[in-house]
Amino acid sequence: MSALPARVRIVEVGPRDGLQNEKAQVATADKIELIDRLSATGLQSIEATSFVSPKWVPQLADAAEVFGGIMRRPGAHYPVLVPNLQGYERARAVGVDEVAVFTAASEAFNRKNINAGIDESLARFAPVIERARADGVAVRGYVSTVLGCPYQGEVPVADVVRVARELHLMGCYEISLGDTIGVGTPAKARAMLRAVAEAVPMPALAIHFHDTYGQALANILACLEEGVSVVDSAVSGAGGCPYAKGASGNVASEDVVYMLHGLGIETGIDLTALAETGRWLATRLGRETGSKVGRALAVS
Amino acid sequence: MSALPARVRIVEVGPRDGLQNEKAQVATADKIELIDRLSATGLQSIEATSFVSPKWVPQLADAAEVFGGIMRRPGAHYPVLVPNLQGYERARAVGVDEVAVFTAASEAFNRKNINAGIDESLARFAPVIERARADGVAVRGYVSTVLGCPYQGEVPVADVVRVARELHLMGCYEISLGDTIGVGTPAKARAMLRAVAEAVPMPALAIHFHDTYGQALANILACLEEGVSVVDSAVSGAGGCPYAKGASGNVASEDVVYMLHGLGIETGIDLTALAETGRWLATRLGRETGSKVGRALAVS
Repeated sequence: MSALPARVRIVEVGPRDGLQNEKAQVATADKIELIDRLSATGLQSIEATSFVSPKWVPQLADAAEVFGGIMRRPGAHYPVLVPNLQGYERARAVGVDEVAVFTAASEAFNRKNINAGIDESLARFAPVIERARADGVAVRGYVSTVLGCPYQGEVPVADVVRVARELHLMGCYEISLGDTIGVGTPAKARAMLRAVAEAVPMPALAIHFHDTYGQALANILACLEEGVSVVDSAVSGAGGCPYAKGASGNVASEDVVYMLHGLGIETGIDLTALAETGRWLATRLGRETGSKVGRALAVS
Repeated sequence: MSALPARVRIVEVGPRDGLQNEKAQVATADKIELIDRLSATGLQSIEATSFVSPKWVPQLADAAEVFGGIMRRPGAHYPVLVPNLQGYERARAVGVDEVAVFTAASEAFNRKNINAGIDESLARFAPVIERARADGVAVRGYVSTVLGCPYQGEVPVADVVRVARELHLMGCYEISLGDTIGVGTPAKARAMLRAVAEAVPMPALAIHFHDTYGQALANILACLEEGVSVVDSAVSGAGGCPYAKGASGNVASEDVVYMLHGLGIETGIDLTALAETGRWLATRLGRETGSKVGRALAVS
């Protein structure tokens, strides 16, 4: 067993990746309250919303209003997703200072999802990243389908490495490697991370595992042992799996933080407050919290 | 990372540990069908029921009828829980050839749960184990609360080691180490297992982790890396947590098997058939399956 990192930064993606994939409509005021509550837990990175066209993602059509309404805690970061220059400009108009771009390691997924091949989507991001860098805006890059694709099945590790390296070379300060459909298991996750880390320095890598098959925490553990120290997760396990209706999506932040603290890894996060926020969000979504820690702490 | 075992034996505890802790009453015929379905998946060890007094566990009052009704697949084992000589005799009368005894590593838990201290409960098992050995009946020993206790909180590892060693010396062929309330995290689970393995040979150890805080698979992964090769689990995640109503109990067999197969570890189990059985059981329990793999496979 390798040494575990002393500290892990959680990137909370519930307000964006989570709510984007929830059926229930959440009021703008509740989205703002969610982010403010998350800020109060000590989270340093909270992905706030997406400036994708409301035609594609109507759940987040209020992106500007949400971003304008939140209290930005000093020292914390509130990245937003932007698909193109137009989205970038909308985000900048409300004072966003960190953005994220999104592509897949699977050619089939990219074509189905954004109607563009991988190279075409990278080319589309080039001016966004260039402009952001000129503006002093940090850019995070997502690579999805790193351990499997709902359309093409297996995704060669070499494709993941290539896309991650490209985003890194284009100027993304951090690359988040996403198991979008949650099919990965620990040895595979570890091997994928190890391969990518040969092309992109480990401190510039994050992992983003969905819990569709219940494997997320085990996969995270294996990757922590490889030295990764940034983990994406969503409070309350917000967001289902669009490729398997009724199945779980994002791993719950509460469950990740519980494991990290149990491993003696610092996060700077108040787990009790996080679990309360997760249960509060669940009431807004009209369902039970998707976090086992959230449920256990509620009744213990 | 240590080498993982090439093969793992799953001990399916759903029909006993699972159903014992479910609110819904399951008909005797359904219990028999459950065990027969589990046998057909290739499982080698299925804990069938408990010959505890029906006063304590009314859910399993039909133990003799269930055991008499199942089809025993050649090569498979169907242990039953017995609390004392009386239970042992009832079990033997219907042809049981493997039994399990149960104690805790926490003194407080033992006193609350079976109204006897650890030494007293071990003394109570001595004649059961002695008789079983004379009869050629294998005895499995459970040690519960190995990573925490709902009454006393922390449980010293030395206490776990002492109880496990005692059961081993008394003649249990296998000792199952249970995180009864699911509070453990991977480093703690690993350290506990490593300490016990200094007193009891690893091939005689099994792990039994509850998923109350979502940590079970990560804990299992850490213990596999330590060399354990027997894992207890319950199909459909049957059985809640009696110490945290509404929270999860047993880790779902489907999720464990999915991880093991993904790690290249053989189990001899047909995962598709297991997941179907888990969903079938969930309909009998009137709720959604507690297995994420079960849910994902149903919709994919």
